Amino acid sequence: MAMDSLEALFEDGLRDMYYAEKKLTRILPKMAKKATSPELADAFTSHAEETEGQVERIEKVFELLDKTARGKRCEALEGLSAEGDHVMEEAEEDGVMDAGLCASAQAVEHYEIARYGALIAWAKQLEMTDAADLLVETLEEEKAADEKLNGIAEKVNPMAERKEAA
Amino acid sequence: MAMDSLEALFEDGLRDMYYAEKKLTRILPKMAKKATSPELADAFTSHAEETEGQVERIEKVFELLDKTARGKRCEALEGLSAEGDHVMEEAEEDGVMDAGLCASAQAVEHYEIARYGALIAWAKQLEMTDAADLLVETLEEEKAADEKLNGIAEKVNPMAERKEAA
Repeated sequence: MAMDSLEALFEDGLRDMYYAEKKLTRILPKMAKKATSPELADAFTSHAEETEGQVERIEKVFELLDKTARGKRCEALEGLSAEGDHVMEEAEEDGVMDAGLCASAQAVEHYEIARYGALIAWAKQLEMTDAADLLVETLEEEKAADEKLNGIAEKVNPMAERKEAA
Repeated sequence: MAMDSLEALFEDGLRDMYYAEKKLTRILPKMAKKATSPELADAFTSHAEETEGQVERIEKVFELLDKTARGKRCEALEGLSAEGDHVMEEAEEDGVMDAGLCASAQAVEHYEIARYGALIAWAKQLEMTDAADLLVETLEEEKAADEKLNGIAEKVNPMAERKEAA
């Protein structure tokens, strides 16, 4: 696809997020299984469900564009996901697992906040109000998810083993 | 390195950001060259200089930990960087290049905001006040860079070619 217009840039970004959100519906349940804090596990499970709705919203935006919903490998999400895998594979202690997973999830949320922020700005520029409104709904969910994780981090970080105590 | 304590998680995250910031000192000047808006190019150039200082701050934190400063391949930054490369290689129009580069840079800023947020929380948990203070300085710079790019996006997005006008 030639990136020769704002429409093309918008569609390219949308395909990126479509891939990312679909991948997250598979990653978040894995993170929920690895989390040792029930509150953190619940947060991952409920955000996985929310993410299903976000996938559907992107499909609606593709419809508004009169395009077939298609994803495209999102390199950033692949990288963020690799960092989450690193925590899941390497954390040798429950508190470290939770603190690491919480931080990994927040990195994903922030990536999405940035991407949806740009997509919304472009949709508005293209006078696609309905598309912008749908993406704003998702952006608000991502911000709320990040806020919730902030609160959980304050609880799980103090549970991580410290060398002095080991 | 065994991830068996909060100290180990902190050091792991620090190595990640050390790699990321060093890589960004090389990426940002490339983005400045590709940007067509002088204001966007200036923003990338001045943030590249700021990033040199951020690398030094991380080196100081390693010193406080009594560890040698060493980076570790940051998969997320590799992915974010690949997305920036995609824009630099594929954008066929000046306005699309600027809008795309601005969004890519904001995705990087948000990643850093999330990572420094976690590192600061962990440093405080570890009662490493001096390390936390250094990282807060960097976090504030990243937030300011993101804000500045928000303002620039409002100017460059309307410059991107639209299909109707093509």
